[in-house]
Amino acid sequence: MSQKAFQDCYSDFVSQCYGCGRLNEHGLQIKSYWDGEQSVCRFTPRPYHMAVPGYVYGGLIASLIDCHSTGTAAAAAYKAQGREMGTEPELRFVTGSLHVDFLRPTPIDGELVLRGTVEEVKGRKVVVSVELTVRGELCARGRVVAVQAPPDLMKPPGG
Amino acid sequence: MSQKAFQDCYSDFVSQCYGCGRLNEHGLQIKSYWDGEQSVCRFTPRPYHMAVPGYVYGGLIASLIDCHSTGTAAAAAYKAQGREMGTEPELRFVTGSLHVDFLRPTPIDGELVLRGTVEEVKGRKVVVSVELTVRGELCARGRVVAVQAPPDLMKPPGG
Repeated sequence: MSQKAFQDCYSDFVSQCYGCGRLNEHGLQIKSYWDGEQSVCRFTPRPYHMAVPGYVYGGLIASLIDCHSTGTAAAAAYKAQGREMGTEPELRFVTGSLHVDFLRPTPIDGELVLRGTVEEVKGRKVVVSVELTVRGELCARGRVVAVQAPPDLMKPPGG
Repeated sequence: MSQKAFQDCYSDFVSQCYGCGRLNEHGLQIKSYWDGEQSVCRFTPRPYHMAVPGYVYGGLIASLIDCHSTGTAAAAAYKAQGREMGTEPELRFVTGSLHVDFLRPTPIDGELVLRGTVEEVKGRKVVVSVELTVRGELCARGRVVAVQAPPDLMKPPGG
């Protein structure tokens, strides 16, 4: 895709998250994009991301839903303000609550596709729902209440 | 503690989970124990488990709550049957649903302490609630509906 990923618009200080930070060399470095009104993230699990042989462990699914949703929340907030993502003042979201329904074991040998839908943008809160599919089969559903990050999380202490 | 961890009672085939498998060399290898009526798990995050500098990323918290709860569910199911953990037939649980409320940013420079409470044991379902504290301060609350793993997830295909 020629579009820039949501996470590639984050400033350096808030780009160190294990799930979505482009500067975290140990992390998952997920990338999320708009696809029409929905947001999409594609992730190929590594063999050690297993729960039992053949299937992905739930914590990875929760992590992907979490970070894809907070990224989607930021993108939706910029969009609601009619601003290009990454412009100042920076909008970044943290997770207030996360809910995941695991509908069936998620195969580890395929690409996980997460599609996010913005349910609500209201004040400092954005609600995102996510469907996770593998080869078109729905494996998990998530819902995240994201809250705009307070200023003291957005910059170094005293910065 | 002299007590054996719940996860050390799992058979080899189901000990490969990234979150809790003792055989997953890349994974978190969490350990859960009874502490009276509650279950407890202590985990020290690595520096790269951050969300923003100074705080733990939500996916780790979700992973710990998830695996600590499924372990607690298994232990509770054995207890309900008056059986020692690890005896055959093996009882192992998967996650039906996971809910996490992030109450405040979780400091990365302390030991995370997860305390699980068994809310319900009914048929193949066990409900576990978890409180996560750091230095005594409550940072997150979780709730997992765990379901006994179907036999085909418990052994190799054709095994």
